[in-house]
Amino acid sequence: MRLATLRTSTGTAAVRIDDPATATIIDGFADLSVLLTDPDWETLARDAAGATVDLAGADYAPVLPNPGKIVCVGLNYATHITEMGRDLPHYPTLFAKFAEALTGPYDDVVVPGYAAAELDWEAELAVIVGARAYQVAEADADAYIAGYSVINDYTMRDYQYRTLQWDQGKTFEKTSGFGPHLVTNYTLGTRIEARLEGEVMQSASTDDLVFGPAKLVEYISHIVTLQPGDVIITGTTGGVGHARKPARYIQSGETVEVTIDGIGSVKNKTIVK
Amino acid sequence: MRLATLRTSTGTAAVRIDDPATATIIDGFADLSVLLTDPDWETLARDAAGATVDLAGADYAPVLPNPGKIVCVGLNYATHITEMGRDLPHYPTLFAKFAEALTGPYDDVVVPGYAAAELDWEAELAVIVGARAYQVAEADADAYIAGYSVINDYTMRDYQYRTLQWDQGKTFEKTSGFGPHLVTNYTLGTRIEARLEGEVMQSASTDDLVFGPAKLVEYISHIVTLQPGDVIITGTTGGVGHARKPARYIQSGETVEVTIDGIGSVKNKTIVK
Repeated sequence: MRLATLRTSTGTAAVRIDDPATATIIDGFADLSVLLTDPDWETLARDAAGATVDLAGADYAPVLPNPGKIVCVGLNYATHITEMGRDLPHYPTLFAKFAEALTGPYDDVVVPGYAAAELDWEAELAVIVGARAYQVAEADADAYIAGYSVINDYTMRDYQYRTLQWDQGKTFEKTSGFGPHLVTNYTLGTRIEARLEGEVMQSASTDDLVFGPAKLVEYISHIVTLQPGDVIITGTTGGVGHARKPARYIQSGETVEVTIDGIGSVKNKTIVK
Repeated sequence: MRLATLRTSTGTAAVRIDDPATATIIDGFADLSVLLTDPDWETLARDAAGATVDLAGADYAPVLPNPGKIVCVGLNYATHITEMGRDLPHYPTLFAKFAEALTGPYDDVVVPGYAAAELDWEAELAVIVGARAYQVAEADADAYIAGYSVINDYTMRDYQYRTLQWDQGKTFEKTSGFGPHLVTNYTLGTRIEARLEGEVMQSASTDDLVFGPAKLVEYISHIVTLQPGDVIITGTTGGVGHARKPARYIQSGETVEVTIDGIGSVKNKTIVK
């Protein structure tokens, strides 16, 4: 099943995607962040019989507009870590992105000039929590995952490296394209890619994750409760602009597309203002 | 004016503290996180005429139980930085704590055994945002600050240093005592102290901050929108247990009290289970 949050003339609406051209409104839920707080969200979504929406020209909001928390993982693609000559990590590196950093999967990303010096992409698989999880074992974790989506962990590299802590470079207002769909049935092992102006910059398989979704639910939920609608973004592989020789940053007017086969794509043009 | 969130037999309630013995319920608002989303929160609080509460034996919730975000600042007390032989930073170091890490100002902190090896205190001034702030100048920032409170930025040092990013050591479930009051009129320059079992471990003046509350609102709001009820915790001074020779960690049964003169104290006993 595929779900999304659409912007409508009266706000936003949670929808079920029925086919590439058509969605059905899940009545009573303004977005997927709200829907997932209902323990019966999956049945409600499957049985929804609200108005039909023509997806031609639909305006997609961030698939979850308001996660209570977004836990980001760094250094998590094995091939990339070993090709850099590093050992695989014993523990996941965790940092945070705030909900205000999210934007729709096809929105323009508007960046203030003072933050535009080193704009970079990071193609990432997003894991969306579907039930309250505290001290959950890896073997049980799938039951706490609602589904998967695509995110560009858009990064201001200069801000990221102003201090030892990365968070400030990871959470600029409305920069991280997120969506378009929450896909409930996805199996790791498909291609994840980032393209800048159509040119492939990153390419990996999602089964190359050192810490996969279930392991991350176990690890994080032994620190803090994961709530329905929380998001874990699982890290990126080699090929980001900052690590290229010479470095390659996103310029005003350029478009980055992040695609995960079997889930979908986000595609956002950057506008520096 | 002093405000708080109290646990009641029917949930929680936002209250105005009238004197050390008495509070008045601010009807219609379950806690201060909800109250601050009303642009008229200050008038509503001042004019509240709900039921009177006897504060003897009152049960204090985290003063804001559910901030949308908690932005933490590191390395921010000038005297401590210079005495360590370091230069003052050009930019604030920012990281994050999730709302689930908060606990009431007098609650026991229950820590699972696997996380109890290196428990530490950090006495911090909390700044509470009172109005939506985006790209706000330092000179205008006071108008966006609702008030101030006290927090123990309780830290699992082993988790903090498992990776380069500190967040995972800063956000364990219900560990950071926060409150008891939101104080609307506070001026920097009073003493902030942490005591372990009554012994002073940290002591500084809050006007020793490198980046003060107004500067932090300016800096953070040029990255991301600060929302009413968001919290900025402003960093700690020397004297934490991890930096002592030998290191001194909180043991099960021990109590840490963090006090800021003119605001109040949080006092939490740690129980390892």
